[in-house]
Amino acid sequence: MNYEIPDLNLKALFLGSKGENVDLFKELLLKVVDEHVGWRQNYQPQDLPVITPYDKSSQSFQDTADHMRSVFNELSSKLRTESLPWHTAGRFWGHMNSETLMPAIIAYTAAMLWNGNNVAYESSPGTSKMEEEVGHELAKMMSYKEGESWGHICADGSIANLEGLWYARNMKSLPLAIQEVAPEHVKGKSEWELLNMSTDEILNIMEQIPDQLDEVKAHSARSGKNLDKLGRWLIPQTKHYSWLKAADIIGIGLDCVEAIDVDSNYRMGIGKLEAKIRELAAQNIPILGVVGVVGSTEEGQIDHIHKIVELREKLAKEGIYYYIHVDAAYGGYARAIFLDENDEFIEYNKIDEVFKKHSIFTDMKLKNEWLTEDIYNSFKAMSQAESITIDPHKMGYIPYSAGAIVVRDTRMRDAISYFATYVFEKGADIPALLGAYILEGSKAGATAASVWTAHKVLPLNVTGYGKLMGASIEGAYRFYNFLKNRKFNVNGKVINLYPLTKPDFNMVDYVFNEEGNTDLVQMNKLNYEFFNHASYVKGSLYSNEFITSHTDFAIPDYGNSPLQFVQSLGFSKAEWDRAEKVTILRACALSPYAHDEEVFAEYAAKIEKAIHEKLEDIYNEMNE
Amino acid sequence: MNYEIPDLNLKALFLGSKGENVDLFKELLLKVVDEHVGWRQNYQPQDLPVITPYDKSSQSFQDTADHMRSVFNELSSKLRTESLPWHTAGRFWGHMNSETLMPAIIAYTAAMLWNGNNVAYESSPGTSKMEEEVGHELAKMMSYKEGESWGHICADGSIANLEGLWYARNMKSLPLAIQEVAPEHVKGKSEWELLNMSTDEILNIMEQIPDQLDEVKAHSARSGKNLDKLGRWLIPQTKHYSWLKAADIIGIGLDCVEAIDVDSNYRMGIGKLEAKIRELAAQNIPILGVVGVVGSTEEGQIDHIHKIVELREKLAKEGIYYYIHVDAAYGGYARAIFLDENDEFIEYNKIDEVFKKHSIFTDMKLKNEWLTEDIYNSFKAMSQAESITIDPHKMGYIPYSAGAIVVRDTRMRDAISYFATYVFEKGADIPALLGAYILEGSKAGATAASVWTAHKVLPLNVTGYGKLMGASIEGAYRFYNFLKNRKFNVNGKVINLYPLTKPDFNMVDYVFNEEGNTDLVQMNKLNYEFFNHASYVKGSLYSNEFITSHTDFAIPDYGNSPLQFVQSLGFSKAEWDRAEKVTILRACALSPYAHDEEVFAEYAAKIEKAIHEKLEDIYNEMNE
Repeated sequence: MNYEIPDLNLKALFLGSKGENVDLFKELLLKVVDEHVGWRQNYQPQDLPVITPYDKSSQSFQDTADHMRSVFNELSSKLRTESLPWHTAGRFWGHMNSETLMPAIIAYTAAMLWNGNNVAYESSPGTSKMEEEVGHELAKMMSYKEGESWGHICADGSIANLEGLWYARNMKSLPLAIQEVAPEHVKGKSEWELLNMSTDEILNIMEQIPDQLDEVKAHSARSGKNLDKLGRWLIPQTKHYSWLKAADIIGIGLDCVEAIDVDSNYRMGIGKLEAKIRELAAQNIPILGVVGVVGSTEEGQIDHIHKIVELREKLAKEGIYYYIHVDAAYGGYARAIFLDENDEFIEYNKIDEVFKKHSIFTDMKLKNEWLTEDIYNSFKAMSQAESITIDPHKMGYIPYSAGAIVVRDTRMRDAISYFATYVFEKGADIPALLGAYILEGSKAGATAASVWTAHKVLPLNVTGYGKLMGASIEGAYRFYNFLKNRKFNVNGKVINLYPLTKPDFNMVDYVFNEEGNTDLVQMNKLNYEFFNHASYVKGSLYSNEFITSHTDFAIPDYGNSPLQFVQSLGFSKAEWDRAEKVTILRACALSPYAHDEEVFAEYAAKIEKAIHEKLEDIYNEMNE
Repeated sequence: MNYEIPDLNLKALFLGSKGENVDLFKELLLKVVDEHVGWRQNYQPQDLPVITPYDKSSQSFQDTADHMRSVFNELSSKLRTESLPWHTAGRFWGHMNSETLMPAIIAYTAAMLWNGNNVAYESSPGTSKMEEEVGHELAKMMSYKEGESWGHICADGSIANLEGLWYARNMKSLPLAIQEVAPEHVKGKSEWELLNMSTDEILNIMEQIPDQLDEVKAHSARSGKNLDKLGRWLIPQTKHYSWLKAADIIGIGLDCVEAIDVDSNYRMGIGKLEAKIRELAAQNIPILGVVGVVGSTEEGQIDHIHKIVELREKLAKEGIYYYIHVDAAYGGYARAIFLDENDEFIEYNKIDEVFKKHSIFTDMKLKNEWLTEDIYNSFKAMSQAESITIDPHKMGYIPYSAGAIVVRDTRMRDAISYFATYVFEKGADIPALLGAYILEGSKAGATAASVWTAHKVLPLNVTGYGKLMGASIEGAYRFYNFLKNRKFNVNGKVINLYPLTKPDFNMVDYVFNEEGNTDLVQMNKLNYEFFNHASYVKGSLYSNEFITSHTDFAIPDYGNSPLQFVQSLGFSKAEWDRAEKVTILRACALSPYAHDEEVFAEYAAKIEKAIHEKLEDIYNEMNE
């Protein structure tokens, strides 16, 4: 169905910081349960129930039910004792956790009752169709062409990234395989040229040789051959361990991974990227691919995807080509904020007008603080990447776990797919055996139903998710501005708060430092202690009035990119070299409530007090 | 908590074929919702709700809620129209779908409300602990030693198998890395000897060189080097595509996969295995590992794991060693039926006594039909494998998706783990960053809670899951006996039913053939048509009175292993060579109700009639 989307009120879409919407939640939850049970009852109504009233009144039934009730008491106690209170409207500024969409939670439960397995259409016709729809919706959100692109849900971003690398590896190896199997199609090309063919060129040839497809595939990297010829996989210096793991698993190995330095804003340095590519090319080493990150795990920063794409266009003229995978596990859904009601990418100078129309950002000053042309262009250029990781369980506000990957050209599936004997039974557009086209096998139909329902409630543009993204970014900027220039007087000392960098998205990193302190190790200790006091580490999460997260930027991962920040706090280069890291506090600003000026103001006073108390505790402990 | 386990009544653990237990289901479901909401309300009760009564009565709130209600109407309709009615007590004999445990469903929903991400302890202390417990429980179910073994939940069996292969690949490469980094520890060993060191030997050396661990790891297969030296990965001939995919992804390549012929009971031929290993050894090609399958996807058959282990012991004397991975994605939980109240593996001659005590099998004749010493010994020997895939979402009766892998020796984790800067913050037994020790990243805490709750309700031995496994196997044998020698008279023809083989577990494969028919292509057509009539293919699933699944055993995957069966039906070898496959109908007998003699008898009459009607329809259509 196509829905007329009302002016969405985000407050109706979450259970609420105090469970305010519990009635609506229960109404829908019980409705899906009742409809499921009605379905069971009415399938072949001539069949009588096999669990009889006598069964139910038996001692063993009662005992079993009571045993189950006891187990649920324990489960509930454990969950209530050791979970994060991310539901609060303004006290949780920590790890990547937040409210998830009420429709997504209920849809998951609903579909779980039917328990489809989307690995095979036969097992789950309903939810398999939903997954196919969701894949196309996500592809469309990236402005991939309809009818030519594809996507699917997967377990998480690490798996999506691994699948992206699998695509890149097998794609890159195809020209060598074509040369072995159908050499007439790559006549006269040197090995260097074969390893620098564009994805389009390769796919166009593959399309011309359907009868040799299987043989070409058998000669591709999947055979285990030629992995050492495929070149280097370039990732940002902050190299998330999932990329190292992926290179390990996929068999190209860590030795093929090259880290490109990030700048002092934690974005991949494009000059450095070009220099590295030229340096490798001079040694006849091709580039397997380049990873751009949209929403880095630790800083939420956004690589300049448009510049990675422009560089590819420039180098193509010199015979160099690389696959681009965008790791937008975190930031992928944010592209919805740039799509108008018709899912068209909004012109830069129309943004204010469209945002106003759809009440995105209550305060346009905060929008102006956030949005730069580089951020805009980065999102816009995502459509040029071969594949993109997007996690519904992050900025999609879907419960864990729901990752996804989209590919620009459906034909790329041929590079990784398997055909079991029963794969073509359906002959429809939807793979009869999805497991033959993706990295995983069995997968919950419920995940597809959850994402599908969320997308139906909130379209992937300014009428839906765009609003939620705006609220999150606005909340982040309120928190960022709260931190800036804030001071605490503790036991006669002045403790200053410094944000790390202006956020590209909704993640705010920051540090505390004592005024006059020039000992970086000491500052790191203070921030680590602060994390301990603002997390599970020092006792009960439930009684904690301010919660945050932390990370370390250490030289092995970050090189000197934090140096500029560290120096801006008054530390010397020598001090940086001595400490070898800076401990950072980290806030994912995901609350759907904190963008509201009044709400934020109310909580700002509360968390300022809570932070002050923690600092006092820390200083008192240090003096003991 | 340790629970006194009552005499469990399986009928109290499922929603019921007609939703008989809906009251109990709702009681528990609403309890977990209320307890969650109470928790939200009472976290910092001084904070007021941010969603006010005014908000809730606003037009946009009402419109948004109504929009959401409309979407739920569509979701519910789609689910009810296109889902499989596996809830029926006796009409669904098809794909791997069935009732799932009520406690698992409710626990999933409960924990989803808190939305922990088990990738990091910080994000999910409660459910991270549950996952650690579940891992140890599964390891114990395999009789792995407590305190020395480990396990974790993963997305599904394909991912677990891939992780198993990742373990095997990196482990196998370690001796070469040790030779490069710490050669004194493998002094005098030839490359052949290095590539035939046992897992224990390797781990013992690794333990002696903690300071060189990282360097050794950097020289292992994860570097991308030496992949071509590691030898062959041996899998059963029926090679599930997930194994081909795994070899592709992991970079050893399909060329390193060797299929070992299965016998006419679809179990890996141990003589063939030995011959292949010797043939490869003669060419100086080592064995990377051997996969034994416990519960094959298409036949439910169980490889003789004890013989794979015995062969390894025999060959060890000749300097040949291989890693063993058991793919018990399907059959893993069945090991619970062999564990007594104290989780000890029951002696073979005590089985009847223990089964009687715990009411496993209502009819011991069916148990005697099923259980052979080979099946018993296969399960027993699983404890000798290095790693095992076990899917809670299959025989664990847990909703999709929940896979798992267990490793015999926790030290093996060093072969695949990554250390991010924040991994050791906790310093506890539980990885602070689970993502650094496993293939995936983000993962639902809810899955862990679901499996944890199920294991608490049904212990992994004869007092719990053993009963459920017994019910399933007993139901399978009732269906198997129903099929045997059954005939249908249709339009003057006699159609006979033939089971494929005596099931090792709970999967029953079968075919229809017209009496006197000697045309195998014709028989395949009949069975394919039958599947069409007994599945989603011919219209509404909801009005279908008998549902089954199908598969093809084709020469490329099966060689001549189906020949004996095909010949027993009266087809010639020439006919087999002509048809190149046999189309098989397939029933996973998972119903927790159909083992009951009366229930089965009632449904047997109904499905006999339904089958007869389908055959009539097919023959009438053929004559049109």
